[in-house]
Amino acid sequence: MNKTLMTDFYEIAMAQTYFDQGKKDEIVYFDIFFRKNPFNGGYTISGGLDEIIDFVNNFHFDEEDINYLRSIYSFKEEFLDYLKNLKFTGSIYAVPDGTVVFPHEPVITIKAKTIEAQILETALLASFNHASLVTTITKRITTEAGKAAVMEFGARRARGIDSAIEASKYSYIGGCVGTSNVLAAKKYNIPALGTMAHSLVTEADDEYQAFLNFAKSNPDNCVFLVDTYDTLRIGIPNAIRVAKDYLVPNGYKFKGIRIDSGDLAYLSKEARKMLDEAGFKDTAICLSNGLDEYTIRDLVSQGAYFNSLGVGDNIAASKERVGGVYKLVAVEKDGEIIPKIKVSNDSEKTINPGYKKLYRFYDKETGYALGDVITTYDEVIDENEPYMLINPVDTWKKTELRNFTVKELHVPIFIDGEQVYNIPSLDERKDYCNKQMGTMYPEIKRIINPHVYYVDLSEKLLKLKKDLIHMYTGK
Amino acid sequence: MNKTLMTDFYEIAMAQTYFDQGKKDEIVYFDIFFRKNPFNGGYTISGGLDEIIDFVNNFHFDEEDINYLRSIYSFKEEFLDYLKNLKFTGSIYAVPDGTVVFPHEPVITIKAKTIEAQILETALLASFNHASLVTTITKRITTEAGKAAVMEFGARRARGIDSAIEASKYSYIGGCVGTSNVLAAKKYNIPALGTMAHSLVTEADDEYQAFLNFAKSNPDNCVFLVDTYDTLRIGIPNAIRVAKDYLVPNGYKFKGIRIDSGDLAYLSKEARKMLDEAGFKDTAICLSNGLDEYTIRDLVSQGAYFNSLGVGDNIAASKERVGGVYKLVAVEKDGEIIPKIKVSNDSEKTINPGYKKLYRFYDKETGYALGDVITTYDEVIDENEPYMLINPVDTWKKTELRNFTVKELHVPIFIDGEQVYNIPSLDERKDYCNKQMGTMYPEIKRIINPHVYYVDLSEKLLKLKKDLIHMYTGK
Repeated sequence: MNKTLMTDFYEIAMAQTYFDQGKKDEIVYFDIFFRKNPFNGGYTISGGLDEIIDFVNNFHFDEEDINYLRSIYSFKEEFLDYLKNLKFTGSIYAVPDGTVVFPHEPVITIKAKTIEAQILETALLASFNHASLVTTITKRITTEAGKAAVMEFGARRARGIDSAIEASKYSYIGGCVGTSNVLAAKKYNIPALGTMAHSLVTEADDEYQAFLNFAKSNPDNCVFLVDTYDTLRIGIPNAIRVAKDYLVPNGYKFKGIRIDSGDLAYLSKEARKMLDEAGFKDTAICLSNGLDEYTIRDLVSQGAYFNSLGVGDNIAASKERVGGVYKLVAVEKDGEIIPKIKVSNDSEKTINPGYKKLYRFYDKETGYALGDVITTYDEVIDENEPYMLINPVDTWKKTELRNFTVKELHVPIFIDGEQVYNIPSLDERKDYCNKQMGTMYPEIKRIINPHVYYVDLSEKLLKLKKDLIHMYTGK
Repeated sequence: MNKTLMTDFYEIAMAQTYFDQGKKDEIVYFDIFFRKNPFNGGYTISGGLDEIIDFVNNFHFDEEDINYLRSIYSFKEEFLDYLKNLKFTGSIYAVPDGTVVFPHEPVITIKAKTIEAQILETALLASFNHASLVTTITKRITTEAGKAAVMEFGARRARGIDSAIEASKYSYIGGCVGTSNVLAAKKYNIPALGTMAHSLVTEADDEYQAFLNFAKSNPDNCVFLVDTYDTLRIGIPNAIRVAKDYLVPNGYKFKGIRIDSGDLAYLSKEARKMLDEAGFKDTAICLSNGLDEYTIRDLVSQGAYFNSLGVGDNIAASKERVGGVYKLVAVEKDGEIIPKIKVSNDSEKTINPGYKKLYRFYDKETGYALGDVITTYDEVIDENEPYMLINPVDTWKKTELRNFTVKELHVPIFIDGEQVYNIPSLDERKDYCNKQMGTMYPEIKRIINPHVYYVDLSEKLLKLKKDLIHMYTGK
């Protein structure tokens, strides 16, 4: 199925308006950005480039699409003819998947003809918003989990089958070691993980027998789910019996147990003792059951013992959202780039106008990120000169940076309609994301009440913004 | 792409265990149910049958899937051979899409051979959970909106492109009049809705000119977005000017305005006055901007004026979830159905055992639903005899029903592998859902602190449950 019609109807109504104005070849610039970090957190991790690249490369209207549009609305034939031959001829600049980003930053910039840029809005936002949400929550969770492996178990609670598959992918980039979702594992070549559910035990009635049956069929993957009846009194003793009766005598490994209910902090500590006392010091403990970054932090602080965590709902069906928006920031007239603004009474909602660049400053010695600066597209920052960071709202807040390195965060994805970016593998993106996080001060990564990372505007951009606000409001 | 591998890995590890036990032909029964209504609400609307039927009808492993499984795990060749020829041969009973359902009710029952039933779990849950979430929140929102039309505008915030398309469909069943998502509109033959975004205005700089351009290109769809600069001072006057300068003289209708920011209650009342005074009494007012059932209720209570509402995030990217689970409730041995239970220390979490039926009682005179009763599969309720409702937790709470009609809520979807259910059209499902809601007391539909609808167990089922709990725990 061609998905190019995945756009809001108003994009096409507006497209016809641009067409009728003779503006079909006018170049416009849109930014994708968001206004707050999800989870009241200190950061967001960008994602979605796979889906965006796919959508843009396949961007075209079939005959069937055109017929459908003709059937539902008074579109003019000349306009429909134009749509029939439409493809993406513009340029897209974006931060790579896995980049740590912050509110108001232009994470993706689209430079294209009016109609192309307008129609792409919906699919690009849906792709960015979903992927960034999953990557961000996974990073929050894996950060709290520390060295423990986090497995993504959320397919059953995801927002439909395809959404589950995307969630598995971005959770891997965000730090999960693998997924329970076999289709996602196959599609993205990531580990498929899991052992048994309660139904295996209830079907057999006898838990010992169920574990033994499982061990005989899956001797290399013996992680027993021990909480069907009673974790400490029945489940772990049964697992240990099966290990002693069958696994050890046959040279197999008692790989682990999983606890999926009850007080995980208490049970895991008791479980560790029982396993150790039985001689299974290498047998791992996996915990699951509605885990999120807060419960994981509490497990850690209460000395819970675990080697791995299964996280489902809170990764694949997070109760949050990333609110990426798509705003017109400039148009070209006679080759000149004219910045545009949308002014709001709420100064936080007034957009940053113009075609822009995004720079990140790093401490030359520690490598820590010091802050980001959004500049006009033509600004270059000299690492050998001091640089003044200016708070965009409270402009008296200034910080002079010296001894820094600076990096532009955007990479070109499409140039003049051609894909110029080879998207890194999932492992490369995961690694990149980890390195990105490594440059962030711990205060930014705190899950509650984090420090607000500096995102400032260059002096030139700030002046441009003020001038435009003045032009539109007289203020 | 064949999606049959959309299953949790443990389902396949367990399947191999059943296979090795010679249990591949054993018939098992699983229930899908949930433990609480989303949104702390009084009800849930069931959905997902399209995706479930599709998945089951296409349930098979390709050669490529088998090769993949072989490559990642020590599956035995006999087992993989069995998977190669696997198809669904069982039966599925479910409440139709759009049915009002409640916690602990078996909304879907799967009767199938062990391996089929186990592998289906993940996709069936993801389908049910997503569709039910969207349908439920939409019904909550459309209920508060009363006669005002609610349009689904959420594609950009959905959990990916495919999730957006499903959300559009189920929001239509839940009561939306249409969607902004053109692809969903085409796929499901529902109205595609929308007019313009702020970018049309900012691109033109001059709002009057932007409205005029739009009107000329889209004269039959003139709903002007009036809040780009200042709703009352600039936007509405510009819309009225365009109506007077262009629409009226040319015989077109000034269909409406949309307000997407600011205090919608205040602005909408002022807007109504301005439009009326200008002679546009039939010009509609559409409101949008982060609306949910609570803000809509407040708009209504504050006398806001609106004909339609655009709701995006809170339908397609709801911050809630439906927590459907899939639990083994019975197995067949020698033709006999043996009920199974999973006991939990938390009595709310102890499942209702056995193969069951779900009945709804209605007041014979008013038609209101009085309560539901879950029974064993072989119970028949006589409408001519009084029926005693017994609270399943506090069994001293009893209510004797007389003068009722009773209806079994399940319909067969598959029988012995064959689809026997022709899924109703979206309009039929929407209509059915409305009728279902019409049988519910308003107290159940209250969005805050609703009355808890009675869902009781028959005496026979309650006894069975107690006996099984006693058998497993001695208590």
